[in-house]
Amino acid sequence: MSTTRTTTKPRKRTPKAKAPSGQETVHGQRVTFGVDRPLRLDCGIDLSPLTIAYETYGTLDADKANVVLVCHALTGDQYAASVHPATGKPGWWDRMVGPGKPIDTERFFVICANVLGGCMGTTGPASENPETGKPYGLSFPVVTVRDMVRAQAMLLDHLQIETLFAVAGGSMGGMQVLQWASDYPERVFAAMPIATAARHTAQNIGFHEVGRQAVMADPDWCRGDYHAKGKRPTKGLAVARMAAHITYLSEEALHRKFGRRLQDRDALAFGFDADFQVESYLRHQGMTFVERFDANSYLYLTRAMDYFDLAADHGGVLANAFAGTHTRFCIVSFTSDWLFPTEVNRAVVHALNAAGARVSFVEVETDSGHDSFLLDEPELETALRGFLDSAARARGLQPAGAA
Amino acid sequence: MSTTRTTTKPRKRTPKAKAPSGQETVHGQRVTFGVDRPLRLDCGIDLSPLTIAYETYGTLDADKANVVLVCHALTGDQYAASVHPATGKPGWWDRMVGPGKPIDTERFFVICANVLGGCMGTTGPASENPETGKPYGLSFPVVTVRDMVRAQAMLLDHLQIETLFAVAGGSMGGMQVLQWASDYPERVFAAMPIATAARHTAQNIGFHEVGRQAVMADPDWCRGDYHAKGKRPTKGLAVARMAAHITYLSEEALHRKFGRRLQDRDALAFGFDADFQVESYLRHQGMTFVERFDANSYLYLTRAMDYFDLAADHGGVLANAFAGTHTRFCIVSFTSDWLFPTEVNRAVVHALNAAGARVSFVEVETDSGHDSFLLDEPELETALRGFLDSAARARGLQPAGAA
Repeated sequence: MSTTRTTTKPRKRTPKAKAPSGQETVHGQRVTFGVDRPLRLDCGIDLSPLTIAYETYGTLDADKANVVLVCHALTGDQYAASVHPATGKPGWWDRMVGPGKPIDTERFFVICANVLGGCMGTTGPASENPETGKPYGLSFPVVTVRDMVRAQAMLLDHLQIETLFAVAGGSMGGMQVLQWASDYPERVFAAMPIATAARHTAQNIGFHEVGRQAVMADPDWCRGDYHAKGKRPTKGLAVARMAAHITYLSEEALHRKFGRRLQDRDALAFGFDADFQVESYLRHQGMTFVERFDANSYLYLTRAMDYFDLAADHGGVLANAFAGTHTRFCIVSFTSDWLFPTEVNRAVVHALNAAGARVSFVEVETDSGHDSFLLDEPELETALRGFLDSAARARGLQPAGAA
Repeated sequence: MSTTRTTTKPRKRTPKAKAPSGQETVHGQRVTFGVDRPLRLDCGIDLSPLTIAYETYGTLDADKANVVLVCHALTGDQYAASVHPATGKPGWWDRMVGPGKPIDTERFFVICANVLGGCMGTTGPASENPETGKPYGLSFPVVTVRDMVRAQAMLLDHLQIETLFAVAGGSMGGMQVLQWASDYPERVFAAMPIATAARHTAQNIGFHEVGRQAVMADPDWCRGDYHAKGKRPTKGLAVARMAAHITYLSEEALHRKFGRRLQDRDALAFGFDADFQVESYLRHQGMTFVERFDANSYLYLTRAMDYFDLAADHGGVLANAFAGTHTRFCIVSFTSDWLFPTEVNRAVVHALNAAGARVSFVEVETDSGHDSFLLDEPELETALRGFLDSAARARGLQPAGAA
């Protein structure tokens, strides 16, 4: 296998939106690192070959100083601001990334890569195991958030990008942001971890374990070998998604959206169909998720989040993970997020304070729960825009529209 | 079929503890109401025959004024204070019910019946459908909390017990307490609903729906017909239990009990076995649950809780459910219960206040979550003992030990 191979794959669906002037969007990019460029994983295994699929938005400036890396969450992907090829829906951070938006593609060159272990083009458990010629399945090594970040660093090296102006992301994306700032402090000028934590709690591990057990209980999972057997554990994965989806919302949001309202009926049906709107909604979430996500990837990525414990790698002291950092941080939490509550985000702030870092902290008042980072939250947009503007001034970047 | 048949079944395991003096415990009692005594259900169906399995503790006094009805929760049963025949473990409320305990069996005659739709002897989906001679499965009618209470009232009528000195229970048991006080105000002197609500919230319906979908996704569920096919959906039911169990605890309790501690290992194993203690614990909860519980009962009882909405039956005004009541109430909530938080318990207090009822309210400070009503919570014991003592004085019952 050749050392490095870069391709721009044709997309299944051509996005209808034209790139606005000043913005260049390149879809379906991927790079493959060959056997002479293995990725050494935390588990001790050298992974090779390694393909990384990514999207870029905006234009890289001459001195490559305007790069923003966006890190996606558990079930996200590289399509942060471009139409998703499987669902046809707008990118998951379309409201944040684009011309004139908080992560302004008329100003910044935005990179978003599918994480290691994912299922949208980057090497993961559905990829071909070179030793067998068949999909890895459970022979894929267990990866960590640090491994994901190492893979992203390889991508940046390949693109000959030395430093990131900023790195931002929510939830598992926020874990990657923290890992970036800790492992490559000299490469990160500004970091914005949103609705995340420096380690996964017992309750969160518990919810993930329920999801994994739901997948593994499905006989069509075939001990992870479903690709080879022409099956898919859609029922188990749908149950996993339903359970997880409840945790992404808040009780208040569920009450506001659904309460005890009935679905397409005037009275209780005394049966097990979806009587209540909330049941119908969750079933829909489960059913649509399985169309776009690989069950084994779900196992691997939840495992990576469970394993995440930044302090554990630094003598149990989180501040040590950021010792001597010059990175500017903005930490964001949401008042109704019970998966990554303000308290665990604030723990990161305290560690950064102890490390003498520049850090600001924004707690956004909202009833929308953990998923708020994906939703219409003007306070989040203001915070992100303000933080990037301020950091850009400090970095000496041109103001928006000055190009 | 004869009108009413009462039997005392031999138990699989004989309890080792002898009944203390003054306390008479009768195990394995059941009564069957024949076709001439059908139970009219909320769904409009007449259920017949109907068997109710129950346990009693203590001695009924001459004027039958010392009866305490204990109502069990979703996965509880009639073995409140006697050894469970399947698990060999002490009763689920053993710390509350017994000689000298808050529900003092030297003073009170305690009845605890398996709920309608349950799987420990009372008629439920695993019972024989008289029309087919096979287990009901999904042909069992969907029952409500009100139906459960109607069945209990039939049991009391059969025992020729007119009034209950008190009725107490937590969670789904608390729903039954509220339903008792609302439907039979003249039969209930004192009521203690614990960690419950007058209606199930959208989030709670959502969690129940996840559990049901987990059961139904198991091919061994066989559309509810697993008994006839010699199968059991143990994997699906275990997943349902794991998800539910997380909701019964609190984040603080999970952190205190498990944190991120590893299970029988010194380092992460980079695999999908239970690395963390919390995973091992949840798997154990799932595996042991399926040994003692019927999957279809789980569907029916969760559905009954979802359907519970006491105000809806009274013009949308909860206070109307208790209009003119003379019952004394003591409402109890737990600070760390996020399934039935203090706020929804307090809503019941407010409705009782509006109805002019005698009501006291105790919020117990604990980090143990919803399951606190089953755990060692001295404040709960004190509240229950004090409430019953005070009500007994008002009722003119003999003090403990005066017999």
